[in-house]
Amino acid sequence: MEKGRLEAFSDGVFAILITITVLELKAPHGVSLSALASVLPLFLNYVLSFLYLGIYWNNHHHLLKACRRIHGGIMWANLHLLFWLSLFPFVTDWAGENHSAPLPTAIYGAVLFLASVAYFVLQSLIITEQGCDSKLAAAIGADRKGKLSSLLYASAIPVAFFQPWIAQAVYALVALFWLVPDRRLAQALKEA
Amino acid sequence: MEKGRLEAFSDGVFAILITITVLELKAPHGVSLSALASVLPLFLNYVLSFLYLGIYWNNHHHLLKACRRIHGGIMWANLHLLFWLSLFPFVTDWAGENHSAPLPTAIYGAVLFLASVAYFVLQSLIITEQGCDSKLAAAIGADRKGKLSSLLYASAIPVAFFQPWIAQAVYALVALFWLVPDRRLAQALKEA
Amino acid sequence: MEKGRLEAFSDGVFAILITITVLELKAPHGVSLSALASVLPLFLNYVLSFLYLGIYWNNHHHLLKACRRIHGGIMWANLHLLFWLSLFPFVTDWAGENHSAPLPTAIYGAVLFLASVAYFVLQSLIITEQGCDSKLAAAIGADRKGKLSSLLYASAIPVAFFQPWIAQAVYALVALFWLVPDRRLAQALKEA
Amino acid sequence: MEKGRLEAFSDGVFAILITITVLELKAPHGVSLSALASVLPLFLNYVLSFLYLGIYWNNHHHLLKACRRIHGGIMWANLHLLFWLSLFPFVTDWAGENHSAPLPTAIYGAVLFLASVAYFVLQSLIITEQGCDSKLAAAIGADRKGKLSSLLYASAIPVAFFQPWIAQAVYALVALFWLVPDRRLAQALKEA
Repeated sequence: MEKGRLEAFSDGVFAILITITVLELKAPHGVSLSALASVLPLFLNYVLSFLYLGIYWNNHHHLLKACRRIHGGIMWANLHLLFWLSLFPFVTDWAGENHSAPLPTAIYGAVLFLASVAYFVLQSLIITEQGCDSKLAAAIGADRKGKLSSLLYASAIPVAFFQPWIAQAVYALVALFWLVPDRRLAQALKEA
Repeated sequence: MEKGRLEAFSDGVFAILITITVLELKAPHGVSLSALASVLPLFLNYVLSFLYLGIYWNNHHHLLKACRRIHGGIMWANLHLLFWLSLFPFVTDWAGENHSAPLPTAIYGAVLFLASVAYFVLQSLIITEQGCDSKLAAAIGADRKGKLSSLLYASAIPVAFFQPWIAQAVYALVALFWLVPDRRLAQALKEA
Repeated sequence: MEKGRLEAFSDGVFAILITITVLELKAPHGVSLSALASVLPLFLNYVLSFLYLGIYWNNHHHLLKACRRIHGGIMWANLHLLFWLSLFPFVTDWAGENHSAPLPTAIYGAVLFLASVAYFVLQSLIITEQGCDSKLAAAIGADRKGKLSSLLYASAIPVAFFQPWIAQAVYALVALFWLVPDRRLAQALKEA
Repeated sequence: MEKGRLEAFSDGVFAILITITVLELKAPHGVSLSALASVLPLFLNYVLSFLYLGIYWNNHHHLLKACRRIHGGIMWANLHLLFWLSLFPFVTDWAGENHSAPLPTAIYGAVLFLASVAYFVLQSLIITEQGCDSKLAAAIGADRKGKLSSLLYASAIPVAFFQPWIAQAVYALVALFWLVPDRRLAQALKEA
């Protein structure tokens, strides 16, 4: 498996996902301010999903840059990650349309959680391929940032059934926390 | 015809197909568990189609890697394969929306069958181009795996009219059977 | 302007257009054979549009391969061609939904005609850039095939108002006529 | 961050946006001339958005060509620009469906304004990266064209509430004014 074609395919999927999520943002019925306001929750959810897809794309890029050889396992771990990301348009639409009702908010968190697990699996496979003493392994280290994020998503799921707004705030805060690109990795790889 | 541009175009089509199939997964009306359950058959069909597109992308990649020269016939055989794959969103939606009624299940199988035939034609053209003593020809051999899959899809079509669930199980089993990437090819080409 | 990025962008647009046209093919309401038959006209129109987009992609590829330098004029002529091609999903849907009523059939022909003119303009700009004694100019020659196609589309437009089926037959025949890739060009460039 | 992958991702997003905007152009109900005329405002808005996306793609290409190194800030400034561009299908549809009512026309202008600001930010970051005495800095100069455009979009927003057609005319005129590719940049870079 050539790395270039895997990257190109993944970039295509990222570009499509980041773009079609907005397709769910249907033109409101009516031309009043209140009609515009009615699409606001969906719009905010779109912004959040856009951020998450941008973060994943950025980190995915650094991860694959560090990867030298692609085997079948990495290929399928990558598709597994793309699968959970491909559910973003669906959960963005469902949570946004329903002003953050409990179940859609919880499902949004579940997709975030499963995507973070899939990312972790992909990362582990690439580190194993590289060897434990590789620069990538050193840069990732114990991956506290990644593990904490997964934990926060998982914790937000039950919370969504009682106070959906708290769960939403958790999703937004974790996104802000990742907006800063993974400097450890960028740094370590630059030195390479 | 340059191979690079054919690969890039095919990758684009694969990336779009794998992503837009999920667009058919409309947000359910309502926020209850039963509303979520109502999209489950469509979701499972989406998972299956995602797997099939991932398998085709993976095998297509190995096939083209083995190919040195593209002529008009290969170009059209490739488009012919992409045509049948492009019907996945349509059949996924139709079969999923109707809880696997007989006719949609049979049509799903027909598209799987025709895609597998189109893949076989593309493969044969590339082998002819390479010469029968090529590594690719040796790696594919009698292509029992491919022929058996086509046979299973074809057999599932009449079965769908009596027991749609058996046909669906066949589609799922063949997908699992392909999840393991085509090691023969990967192996043979690595030695090249 | 780098040729590579223009090709990549055009390939992206071609891949999306060829794929989203099928999105208009909505799952029929019902699971009977007659429900399936109701999408048949739209399906046939989809096949025709798929063929046309495949033909344009193939010829576009040969044309750009022959091109050495891209200036602003070529960039905009290329976007102009992509604009008319981007109307394919719209006209395919409109003509297919209405069992080839006169006006939609005529508009389908008008889009085919305008796309062929846009292709001619792009080709002329590239030949001018190359110089009249270039291999491309020699390969295209008087471009009787291209001019005849444009003429046939234009003639089919008024016919569509009287006998839409004749116009449709003309569109299908011209597509078949182009299915054979432009051997003149392929030949001439191979010798280069 | 490798420039190639950023360009490929951006090209993917541009290709998708320019293509899916037309998906909002639904086949009219009916086959009469008046049914066709009913989609005309949406069609004209589509043409305008297509032009704007083509202009942004062209200028984006020149800008990144001039860029040597991508850091995290440039990556996010680029995503920020793509975010505003991704709202084009939404505003095109809303303004077009409502025959240019005041609010949708104003929002269209606001998206144009915010996209132009995002482009300005991206350009400034790239110039800072290059150094103020770079060819790019010299080519852009005081960027009167860019600043004037932003000013015109901003001025058109309040006008849209009184005379939407004037605002629309401003959007169309600025687009025509940019149709000529940025020769300063093309020129300066060619000399490089």
